[in-house]
Amino acid sequence: MRETEAGDRKSNSMALVVQKYGGSSVADAGSVKRVAKRIAEAKRAGNDVCVVVSAMGDTTDELLDLAAQITPLPPQRELDILLTAGERISMSLLAMAINNLGVKAKSFTGQQAGVITDAVYGRARIVDVVPARIRETLDKGQVAIVAGFQGVNTDTNDVTTLGRGGSDTTAVAIAAGLGADVCEIYSDVDGVFTADPRIVPTARKIDRVSYEEMLELAASGAKILALRAVEYARRYDVPVHVRSSFSAASGTLVTGTYGDFLDPNAPVEADVEAPIISGVAHDRSEAKITVVGVPDVPGMAARIFEVVAAAGANIDMIVQNVSAAQTGLTDISFTLPEGDGPATLAALKGVQGEIGYDSLQFDDQIGKLSLIGAGMKTNPGVSARLFGALRDAGINIEMISTSEIRISVVTRSDSLDEAVRAVHSAFGLDSSEGEAVVYAGTGR
Amino acid sequence: MRETEAGDRKSNSMALVVQKYGGSSVADAGSVKRVAKRIAEAKRAGNDVCVVVSAMGDTTDELLDLAAQITPLPPQRELDILLTAGERISMSLLAMAINNLGVKAKSFTGQQAGVITDAVYGRARIVDVVPARIRETLDKGQVAIVAGFQGVNTDTNDVTTLGRGGSDTTAVAIAAGLGADVCEIYSDVDGVFTADPRIVPTARKIDRVSYEEMLELAASGAKILALRAVEYARRYDVPVHVRSSFSAASGTLVTGTYGDFLDPNAPVEADVEAPIISGVAHDRSEAKITVVGVPDVPGMAARIFEVVAAAGANIDMIVQNVSAAQTGLTDISFTLPEGDGPATLAALKGVQGEIGYDSLQFDDQIGKLSLIGAGMKTNPGVSARLFGALRDAGINIEMISTSEIRISVVTRSDSLDEAVRAVHSAFGLDSSEGEAVVYAGTGR
Repeated sequence: MRETEAGDRKSNSMALVVQKYGGSSVADAGSVKRVAKRIAEAKRAGNDVCVVVSAMGDTTDELLDLAAQITPLPPQRELDILLTAGERISMSLLAMAINNLGVKAKSFTGQQAGVITDAVYGRARIVDVVPARIRETLDKGQVAIVAGFQGVNTDTNDVTTLGRGGSDTTAVAIAAGLGADVCEIYSDVDGVFTADPRIVPTARKIDRVSYEEMLELAASGAKILALRAVEYARRYDVPVHVRSSFSAASGTLVTGTYGDFLDPNAPVEADVEAPIISGVAHDRSEAKITVVGVPDVPGMAARIFEVVAAAGANIDMIVQNVSAAQTGLTDISFTLPEGDGPATLAALKGVQGEIGYDSLQFDDQIGKLSLIGAGMKTNPGVSARLFGALRDAGINIEMISTSEIRISVVTRSDSLDEAVRAVHSAFGLDSSEGEAVVYAGTGR
Repeated sequence: MRETEAGDRKSNSMALVVQKYGGSSVADAGSVKRVAKRIAEAKRAGNDVCVVVSAMGDTTDELLDLAAQITPLPPQRELDILLTAGERISMSLLAMAINNLGVKAKSFTGQQAGVITDAVYGRARIVDVVPARIRETLDKGQVAIVAGFQGVNTDTNDVTTLGRGGSDTTAVAIAAGLGADVCEIYSDVDGVFTADPRIVPTARKIDRVSYEEMLELAASGAKILALRAVEYARRYDVPVHVRSSFSAASGTLVTGTYGDFLDPNAPVEADVEAPIISGVAHDRSEAKITVVGVPDVPGMAARIFEVVAAAGANIDMIVQNVSAAQTGLTDISFTLPEGDGPATLAALKGVQGEIGYDSLQFDDQIGKLSLIGAGMKTNPGVSARLFGALRDAGINIEMISTSEIRISVVTRSDSLDEAVRAVHSAFGLDSSEGEAVVYAGTGR
């Protein structure tokens, strides 16, 4: 609950809520009306409601297709202007639908809503939110609708887009700017699960998860909440409620620090020092490059990753073999988003003479499994159990990386589903196994 | 030709050209590329080029359909935001296509282009044009693309639309604001014709027509150029060149005062005092309301038209019958846009008791024919020839109105085509009849 400036409100009977609806929730006129009803109900229940909306259904992809028909290399400024048309359509239709239910609503572009970004077209970062018009609209008792995914670069007064998942970030940023009580992210799934329910049918919806764990989940392939939105939420301490627009059930609340909340339903004799596993995430979008036969002299690895960084690739995991004593050569492998592969290979090819490596290998048939939870690093039993489960399932581990609350392994892509099921089961996350001391997991 | 600020240009070899392309010229990716080629050629020929573009093909109608699926009464502010998405798409695609040809181009929304309007959503009027960013773009040697049909109400920073045909007005206003040498309006027809070629196959393309005659043509149903665009062009003396985007042939130049230019090909012995007929326009979009049995006392007609004006209808022609001596009652008929009919009838119904009329009649089966040209009023022979032609064709005249350069008559809708052909022929406008002392006409 929030105390507001407007003295005429009963501030203890209402909350300031930011709701975000994704493209699948507003795919057609019927869906827009259904969402409008939900918003009108939240407003009539006494809340201040600000709504962030994505483009309808596949609009963004259709616009990208149109651009591709014109040119393979559209100027990014123009591409951003093009793509922002999608939210313009959905936001105005949604405002119409809410007005039609007798609740006053107004729509605002990213620029009008005060979403200020840097000038990096296509993946701009929000640098400030000045939601004066939103505040004014809410203070008049009206619903404010904001176009997700877009902002304005105030240096040039040009529109920018925030990249895929940008509407989540818009919602969290607006919630932070308004000091909202909660940011509700609506989609077509019920919340965050201990694993992707399409792969692990016994996966469970989790009620609460910390920002840190959600960050690791998002970074490890869980698509339910954009990574940057979680970062923003953690920085500004915005509680995020991930839930379904198709049901009234509550979903998953993302808030707090890991370890903050133990399962209130857990048996009291539970070992509070035991690791608290959030869930198992998976990711098939990466590829592996191996630089074979690198002279094992100081500075060679650094030079390789200089070249890779200059090519614009975000590398994830790195493995360097122990150099063979006879040859003085070593192999260096790293993973990166599959789409960055061609440019990175080309860049490395260009320095083959300088570095003196033998050859390059490109492997896009890898899968990454990540186990996420608090207290892992201090519990050596966790990795032992993880590796044991994979061994028992006959799955080979190709690379390993760890953080304080995550262990990731790379496997063959075609054994990834089985790996996820084996690990989910080994850590007692399956819903048929009763009440394990666990919380949280991954989505979709 | 125009002297420019930039000293490094050969100012006498280039012009500042504003080009406007309608929806049919950019209906799909292929059309956008074709138009881009034309623009790039104009730029490479040494001109400064600013382009105003409409939404692609039927985009605006599709967006209106979407809105209609949501609510029968969308708030106008939201409808305007929705509709401006259409030009956002076409302008950015066009900019991409031009860049793809190696010519630098940037797109601008109405707001970015400095098109300032009043706050009348749906049919806003341009109150100012501040084309600083356009000028800057042209001065860099780049092509500026501007979204037609839209502007910004700077009081609230909300986007507005200018109504149907608004892109023509945008183009003329930008041309005026930039001091352009010419404003070229591209569509799928070759220019302004002496009558609609679909109705009169012998209609001829005219080379030049004055602002005044073009105004009357546009107001009388010729759809080739929006009325407000012509008004704007006349006020700011912007030469408008109406031409086809499918050919390199020149079209019709709209400029000057009527009577300014006699046909240079006309025989020298031609009577220079003879009326110069521009063409025959027709309009099927109006309806007629008759208020039957109005007490013929002073102020009754005024009261009726007060009520009609309050209902928001733009009336065109009015006829009041001579009152019958026995009854002291009269009938008052007027024409108005068909769409304004229901609201106007309802408003009149509401004052039946006060005015004391007998009944209302609504007739949407009327057609209007207008003959336009200079020197009509001073040539009584013109109306005689017009009425004679209609009589010979067996067509009944229901209403008549005249201005200095126009005579309009209302007929049955189903005899309108025949009326147009008869009048076109009677005034020697048919191309098969050789060189008549005429110029100009109507479109589509």
